Amino acid sequence: MRAIVLDYEHRSLLKRDVPVPAPLGDGEVLFRIEEVGVCGTDRELASFRFGYPPAGRSFLVLGHEAVGTVLETGRGVRSLQPGDLVVPMIRRGCRPPCSCCARSRADLCTTGNYRERGIFGVDGYFIEMAVDSEEDLVRVPPALAAIAVLAEPLSVVEKAMASAFRYRQEPPSTALVLGAGPIGLLATLALLGRGLTVLVHSLEPADHPRARLVEQAGARYVPELGGVRADLVLEATGSPQAAFAAIGCLGPLGVCGLLGAAVGTGQVSFRDLVVGNRVVFGSVNASPESFQSAVEQLARFDRTVVDKLIHRAPFEHFAASIAGPPSETAKVVHVIH
Amino acid sequence: MRAIVLDYEHRSLLKRDVPVPAPLGDGEVLFRIEEVGVCGTDRELASFRFGYPPAGRSFLVLGHEAVGTVLETGRGVRSLQPGDLVVPMIRRGCRPPCSCCARSRADLCTTGNYRERGIFGVDGYFIEMAVDSEEDLVRVPPALAAIAVLAEPLSVVEKAMASAFRYRQEPPSTALVLGAGPIGLLATLALLGRGLTVLVHSLEPADHPRARLVEQAGARYVPELGGVRADLVLEATGSPQAAFAAIGCLGPLGVCGLLGAAVGTGQVSFRDLVVGNRVVFGSVNASPESFQSAVEQLARFDRTVVDKLIHRAPFEHFAASIAGPPSETAKVVHVIH
Repeated sequence: MRAIVLDYEHRSLLKRDVPVPAPLGDGEVLFRIEEVGVCGTDRELASFRFGYPPAGRSFLVLGHEAVGTVLETGRGVRSLQPGDLVVPMIRRGCRPPCSCCARSRADLCTTGNYRERGIFGVDGYFIEMAVDSEEDLVRVPPALAAIAVLAEPLSVVEKAMASAFRYRQEPPSTALVLGAGPIGLLATLALLGRGLTVLVHSLEPADHPRARLVEQAGARYVPELGGVRADLVLEATGSPQAAFAAIGCLGPLGVCGLLGAAVGTGQVSFRDLVVGNRVVFGSVNASPESFQSAVEQLARFDRTVVDKLIHRAPFEHFAASIAGPPSETAKVVHVIH
Repeated sequence: MRAIVLDYEHRSLLKRDVPVPAPLGDGEVLFRIEEVGVCGTDRELASFRFGYPPAGRSFLVLGHEAVGTVLETGRGVRSLQPGDLVVPMIRRGCRPPCSCCARSRADLCTTGNYRERGIFGVDGYFIEMAVDSEEDLVRVPPALAAIAVLAEPLSVVEKAMASAFRYRQEPPSTALVLGAGPIGLLATLALLGRGLTVLVHSLEPADHPRARLVEQAGARYVPELGGVRADLVLEATGSPQAAFAAIGCLGPLGVCGLLGAAVGTGQVSFRDLVVGNRVVFGSVNASPESFQSAVEQLARFDRTVVDKLIHRAPFEHFAASIAGPPSETAKVVHVIH
């Protein structure tokens, strides 16, 4: 069957024929991939900055934002049946499991020996069919079929949001999102859905389609950060300078969630953090609860907005979306079936 | 009666005669100050970098780490009686109260219009007698009389520690304390008391009395931070470079509490914060619960260690302890009565 892979021997991105899955083991589920989304991680993987193939193999099947339909279930599978729509979770716990992985919180793995489908040592979902254990699949209502591919990126937002609300000492009323890419836009929708006043700042001009989508969703697009203070700030840019700016925009008791920034040098007012009881935290991946929460949020989102986050492309156009520049207006989602 | 005051008109620290307190109002308590401790804040106040006197007055009575004995109680006071040992809390809520101040969490005040005894707009306790409302006083068992003056600085540590344990996603087992001043040493004792393995790093050489006190308490003094990773890190130095270093010493799921650092420029690996689900937070002042917790901790501390934190000095030696260099080995506590 067809798959899009990274070939680590020749450092190339290519389509490849791979064997169909072996017969199912106990507790396993075979599912047909319907759609797979592309994100910045895929583009970084394709530049071979990180990621690695399964042991003993020189290639990795890409793709970690997927939605599929169950085709067949192995012995002992109780919660899923053929025809069910499912979204796979990405991270697989370390072996032997650390205390976090042992309690199904591989997203908090403390050994660093976790694997991630489509990223670290396990094949992803830019392929026709895949097999996962029942507990790594999240069932999605059929009504969400057209947007369920957003559940994985939204789960990352939902985990960060759960932490932000837990760390915050008073109910928040204002939020600032830095970045208007798919993660920033999903965060904007999730924050609006929680009743917050949301500002979004990004580098795009105010008449850019992303800025217009922000406004259509009900948030305010702010081209300048001067004087902006918010109860919650979410950094969804990948830029360390944005992370420093995010910390500087925290109001009293403010909580700043970092989702993608790397390493940078800048000024931090630790005094403000201290005097204002402020919190800065990083968040990666997502818990099973965050995936459930993402599915619930998707069902509440304004479809006239969220549908615009998705730009569908054929299977074969993988090179343009993965090796090319990021989409100007939306998340590229490849239709597999 | 005698008081040590900051004169804002002449920018000087001096002893001054001030009126005895007026008759008590409902709910008020008159207490005799037994001892008052001196800290870095007092030294900063004495350099007139911040702080201000009560409205309409040009001087402020210094002192915010105090222990006293109740002399008289006003109408309606239920929980205290003459002879009780008390420690006053420092911050007084904003008026009209923000939602935090309204629920007795002036330490989380979001308006910034709080006042603090001995610091911002209300007289402190380097004086013979004082009056406070019943709810601003914490009763202390007589057995703790000799160390109760440490309750206020310890309450700051206890608040930070409660936050750190709340933010941490797994039970912590190792802690790193940066700074071996009184706050650092109290944090060390509080962390050891919670069963953690504690490392302490400071600028003093390993044969310094503070380093020896750290080792006597059961922690390990580490002259170098290279390779040190801890579940909890507490910055108790006031130095922004130490704060950047503190963040760099966090293990996976690590939580870093900042207690005193100011503003600085340095490198931050936001990627490490993200990938390791790490948390950095600032903490100031203390809640009523943290004062209670401080009193409970004091009762458990090893007296052969904690007694060494205190160096007693006469009332009249105020200039040496406040305007002079910080004590080399201990917290200076002035005996008032």
